[in-house]
Amino acid sequence: MHAITIPEPGGPEALVWDEVPDPEPGEGEVLVEVVASAVNRADILQRQGNYAPPPGGSAYPGLECSGRIAALGPGVSGWAVGDEVCALLAGGGYAEKVAVPSGQLLPVPEGVDLRQAAALPEVVCTVWSNVFMVAHLRPAETLLVHGGSSGIGTMAIQLAKAMGARVAVTAGTKEKLDYCAELGADILINYREQDFVEEIQRATDGAGADVILDNMGAKYLDRNVRALATSGRLAIIGLQGGSKGELNIGALLAKRAAVSATSLRARPLGEKAAIVAAVREHVWPLIADGHVRPVVDREVPLSEAAAAQRVVEESGHIGKVLLVAS
Amino acid sequence: MHAITIPEPGGPEALVWDEVPDPEPGEGEVLVEVVASAVNRADILQRQGNYAPPPGGSAYPGLECSGRIAALGPGVSGWAVGDEVCALLAGGGYAEKVAVPSGQLLPVPEGVDLRQAAALPEVVCTVWSNVFMVAHLRPAETLLVHGGSSGIGTMAIQLAKAMGARVAVTAGTKEKLDYCAELGADILINYREQDFVEEIQRATDGAGADVILDNMGAKYLDRNVRALATSGRLAIIGLQGGSKGELNIGALLAKRAAVSATSLRARPLGEKAAIVAAVREHVWPLIADGHVRPVVDREVPLSEAAAAQRVVEESGHIGKVLLVAS
Repeated sequence: MHAITIPEPGGPEALVWDEVPDPEPGEGEVLVEVVASAVNRADILQRQGNYAPPPGGSAYPGLECSGRIAALGPGVSGWAVGDEVCALLAGGGYAEKVAVPSGQLLPVPEGVDLRQAAALPEVVCTVWSNVFMVAHLRPAETLLVHGGSSGIGTMAIQLAKAMGARVAVTAGTKEKLDYCAELGADILINYREQDFVEEIQRATDGAGADVILDNMGAKYLDRNVRALATSGRLAIIGLQGGSKGELNIGALLAKRAAVSATSLRARPLGEKAAIVAAVREHVWPLIADGHVRPVVDREVPLSEAAAAQRVVEESGHIGKVLLVAS
Repeated sequence: MHAITIPEPGGPEALVWDEVPDPEPGEGEVLVEVVASAVNRADILQRQGNYAPPPGGSAYPGLECSGRIAALGPGVSGWAVGDEVCALLAGGGYAEKVAVPSGQLLPVPEGVDLRQAAALPEVVCTVWSNVFMVAHLRPAETLLVHGGSSGIGTMAIQLAKAMGARVAVTAGTKEKLDYCAELGADILINYREQDFVEEIQRATDGAGADVILDNMGAKYLDRNVRALATSGRLAIIGLQGGSKGELNIGALLAKRAAVSATSLRARPLGEKAAIVAAVREHVWPLIADGHVRPVVDREVPLSEAAAAQRVVEESGHIGKVLLVAS
C-alpha cells in the first residue's frame, strides 16, 4: 500500500507519499481500507518531531479515518468485512490501509457520507470525553470554546447546543465567528479585538463560564481561571500557547473550580473503547437526527497531505480538512 | 451569652471573650447551645483579618460545634429541642450559642462523646467532599495526604483506609508519622528529610498517587503534579505555601490529570446540606462501627481560645484542638 511517511522531521515537505508494507490486523483488530482521513494538530507536531507515536502504534500520522473493513483479526466479533466504518486511531490514518482495535470502530452514522465520516471520530471523542465525561457540562450552563471555528470548536458548539447549554466562542475573524453563530453559538468573541474575560462576564451577568474548552494552555491559563464561574471546570486539550503557566490557586479555590488536561492518543485501549462506546450511545443519535453534523472545510488528496497541513497550520480553515484516498 | 470576639485583627491576643447578644434562629435554622467547638486554620486567618466571614454569617470565628438544640426557628422539621447534635458552621462556633441552618446539623454519632463530636463536622465534610465527591478516590487507589497528623489528615487517613485505599502521608516529625501509622497510613514520608515525589514513586513502583489532598498550594504545586499518577487528581484545600504557582500543564496533560481547589465555608446552603447529607449516609456508619473516630489532641476552655490557636499555629498538635464551653 501507500502511506504518508516522515523520513525526517520538518516542515510540510517532510511528508513523503511512499510505498510501504500493508499492516496486519492483530488480536482484536480489524484492517480498514481507508476512504478518508483528516488533519489534526497532533499530526503536525508529529511531523515536526515533537509528538512520537505511542509504543506499538503505527509510525504514520493520522488519528482518524473512514473506510471499509477489509479483514478481521482474531477475536473480533460484531463487525464484518465490507462494513462501512469510521475509527479513532493512535496513528496510521494517512495511509491506504490501517489496523484498528475493534473498540475504536464506529458505524458510519445515518445520513453521513462515508468520506465525511472521517471528520468525526477525533473531534467527537475529544469533545465528548472532555466537555461531558470530565467537565460534566449540564443543560443551561455556559460553555466557552476557544477556537470555535476549528474542527474541535465546530463540534463542541453543536454538541453543547444539542445538550441544552449556552455556548460562547472565541475566533480571530468575523467570517469564522459568523460560521460559529450559524452552528448555534450564542456569544461571539473576536480574540484579536476583545478581552474574552470581559466579554464572557458581560454576557453572563458577571457569572463566568461553567466549562471552558481550551487549546491554548499556558498563554490563556490565568485568563481562563478568571473567566470561570463558581464551580467552573477548565478542560485543557492543547498547548498551542505553551505548557507552563502561573496558576492562581487562590482564585481557583475561591471559585471551587478545577483544571483538567487530557489527550486521547496515549490512553489505554480500554479507556478509548469506553469513550467510543459513550459517543456511539450519546452522540450518534444526535448526528442521525440532524442535530449535529461533520463540518468539512475542504477535501485534499491523501498524497497531498503537505498542502492540507499547510492550511491547518495557517488556520485558513473552518472545521476539518479531509484527506481523501484516491 | 459570651463569645470570642475580634475587636481588631492581630495575634492570638486579638481574641477577646466578651458578652454579646444571643443569636436568633432564622427561617430554617436552629439555635444550638454549644458544648464544644474546635480550632481550624481558617479561624486563625480570620483573626489576622485575612478571611472575612461570608455575608450574613456570624462575626465570631468557629466553623464547627457540638451541643444541644435550644430552640427551633420557623420551618424546621426533623429536629427537636434537646437533641444532641454537631454542626458545620459558616462561623460563630466560638460562642455559647450559635444559629445553624438545619441542613448543616448532624446527630452525634453512636459511641462518640458529645464534646468530641465537635471535632468531626469540618474535617469529615472537607475530606468527604474533596477526596470522595470531587476526586472520587476508589478502593485500591493510593491517596497522598499532606500534613497527615493534622485534623484533616487524621480523618483522611481513616476514611481512605475504611474505603479500601492505600494511604501515604507527609509529616514533619517521627512522632507524628508514628501516629499516622497507628491510624492505618501505609507510606510514611518525613518532609523535612525526604523528597515526597521520590518516596511516593518508590512506594508505588513509579506509578504515583491517584489522589493528593494538599494544604500547601503554590509551594507544592509542581511537586504534587510530578507525584500524581496517570489519571491522578490533586485536591487543594489550603494555601499555606502560597496562592500562585507555576503549573506544568504539559505534565498534567501527559497524565490526563486534574487539579481542583475548594473551600467549604463560602458554599451556598444547598451544597453544604448535600455534603452533610452524604457524610451522614457514608461516614456516620463508619464512625458508629468504630472504623473511624475523632482524633482530639487536647481540650481547652473556650474562653482561652487564644492558647488553643497558638498550639495550632505552632503545629504542636495531632488531630483536633477542641474548645470546650464551661
